[in-house]
Amino acid sequence: MTSPLVLSIDAMGGDHAPDIVVDGAAAFLKGRRRPVKFLLHGDEARIAPLVEKHPGLAAVCEIRHTAGEVDMSAKPSEAVRRSKGSSMWNAVHAVKDGEAHVAVSAGNTGALMAISKVILRMKKGVHRPAIAASWPVPQGYCTVLDVGANVECTPAQLVEFAIMGEAFHRVARGVTRPTVGILNVGSEQMKGDETVRAADALLRAANLDMDYRGYVEGNDISAGTTDVVVTDGFTGNIALKAAEGTARLLAGWMREAFTSSLIAKVGAALLSVSGLKVLKSRMDPRSVNGGVFLGLNGVVVKSHGGTDSVGFATSLRIALELADSRFLTEIEQNLSRLAEVEAEEIADASEQETA
Amino acid sequence: MTSPLVLSIDAMGGDHAPDIVVDGAAAFLKGRRRPVKFLLHGDEARIAPLVEKHPGLAAVCEIRHTAGEVDMSAKPSEAVRRSKGSSMWNAVHAVKDGEAHVAVSAGNTGALMAISKVILRMKKGVHRPAIAASWPVPQGYCTVLDVGANVECTPAQLVEFAIMGEAFHRVARGVTRPTVGILNVGSEQMKGDETVRAADALLRAANLDMDYRGYVEGNDISAGTTDVVVTDGFTGNIALKAAEGTARLLAGWMREAFTSSLIAKVGAALLSVSGLKVLKSRMDPRSVNGGVFLGLNGVVVKSHGGTDSVGFATSLRIALELADSRFLTEIEQNLSRLAEVEAEEIADASEQETA
Repeated sequence: MTSPLVLSIDAMGGDHAPDIVVDGAAAFLKGRRRPVKFLLHGDEARIAPLVEKHPGLAAVCEIRHTAGEVDMSAKPSEAVRRSKGSSMWNAVHAVKDGEAHVAVSAGNTGALMAISKVILRMKKGVHRPAIAASWPVPQGYCTVLDVGANVECTPAQLVEFAIMGEAFHRVARGVTRPTVGILNVGSEQMKGDETVRAADALLRAANLDMDYRGYVEGNDISAGTTDVVVTDGFTGNIALKAAEGTARLLAGWMREAFTSSLIAKVGAALLSVSGLKVLKSRMDPRSVNGGVFLGLNGVVVKSHGGTDSVGFATSLRIALELADSRFLTEIEQNLSRLAEVEAEEIADASEQETA
Repeated sequence: MTSPLVLSIDAMGGDHAPDIVVDGAAAFLKGRRRPVKFLLHGDEARIAPLVEKHPGLAAVCEIRHTAGEVDMSAKPSEAVRRSKGSSMWNAVHAVKDGEAHVAVSAGNTGALMAISKVILRMKKGVHRPAIAASWPVPQGYCTVLDVGANVECTPAQLVEFAIMGEAFHRVARGVTRPTVGILNVGSEQMKGDETVRAADALLRAANLDMDYRGYVEGNDISAGTTDVVVTDGFTGNIALKAAEGTARLLAGWMREAFTSSLIAKVGAALLSVSGLKVLKSRMDPRSVNGGVFLGLNGVVVKSHGGTDSVGFATSLRIALELADSRFLTEIEQNLSRLAEVEAEEIADASEQETA
């Protein structure tokens, strides 16, 4: 029998923790064949009774009691100072200690990133980690990064994201040579702000072994024109949430249309037999809930703070897939390319200064 | 009989002009009671045969021949220099000359904005015009601005957008006291980049007669939590297009589910009787195609460059509604408030300098 993959979970993170975390873990377990084990970090008195409701879960669960938890509104620097021994801190530390293959939290994003950086450290060559989201497209998923770790980015950081995102997509989606684009307001080369134009120039000049396609626009993401879409954390976060909001609105309208009359209900019932369920699940933003932290010595997955158990189960599935892949090795192999780009960039910069 | 409202149209603007422009105008006319008149600017030899196909349209149409057109990839500054006498230039000029109530173009956004600024001039007190989009929400529309005119914005410009957007929403949507929010990556006050935080501080300090609600996130737009959402043109453009892409993807999935089998087709047919059509039209990004330029002495509406006749007809509908409203007066009345904010801001800045 294969040894179980171990998921280390911050059971207290998120708006509706620990309830949705425990229910999510139980939902995730159903029908799963690959053996897994959970480390649940948090308030044992609150977690234990919830776990007991799911006998299957209890059997593969180890509760690690912690007294503290990270506040959803804490500043990242504050969180790092004050959160030692909290459920979030310990969840990430279990990965560092080799006890778990991956950590998952629905807590404060900034705090989780700061804590992960302190505990796991960045991979050699990485200056800023990024959060990658898997965005649904007709043929599968597009990788969009950064979606929230870095509000402001330099051109070199965007290049770093391109390299990490490409490596992630190759492993997570099994695409041998993913295409890469930079998110911009127009596809013409003169458009966009200075940072985006400089990153584009860097990627073109760097002569990386990468299928870089230049600028893409907001609508290109869902259209699936490019495998990997690179942007700063401010724009990426807003684009992702705007798209999720749209999906939620449309799903609501669909429900309305399907229950508007008896005839509609019969129609919807007939559709249910054939594909409506798939459609509903495809349209459900919870089915893509899980941002992956790239650039660290270990895998950390961030679930939405406001998600429910279905969304949290998705984050666990994403975490498991990554833990089960050669994701970290693949990223490592690509970081030498990053060093080359940066050496060139510095050369260029000094050339400009002397010119 | 009421005198007709005159729409001045750049018939050569957009990827599929003049065909979709003429077909769009014809589609827009159908079932309309309020008398309208079109000025179609562009290549008469190409436009006339298209118009002739629609007898109703020909009766209310005046073709104004122009030889030049603005290239879709021209830089704004270039466009202004070279476009005198082009279809776009003349379409906007007809508003300035008092011949038309509103101008509509699906051409190059940057060029249209630059030309509109040169011809119509900005309203007193406005430093940068903005493009406002109408974003569907459960109870109607949210006004989002800027969605593309200003790639980089100062805090004071964001405040300007808030004031113009609020006035626009009041007139366009009939809401007496619209709520206003600034788009950010989180709702906590410490989040976001410096520009956003400074704009938030300005709006709080300014003590405007405005229902300012602080930060909103990407998903809040479609949820309709706030009437007016303010952001820079880079983020706004990407968010809008990301949402449109999502709507298109979901509509595609819906079509797939509805035609996947005979049973599904019967189900969809039953649904068609009751609400599916409404749903489809609601989900159609073409039904919200039309960005309104705010801050100018005249109304200009920008249609997507890649739209079809259905989308172009929507832009004409939006243009007509605005031409028929007291939109410009309302904006003017709000600009005195802008001057006050800016006076205070300058006072604050000098205070900080001396502190």
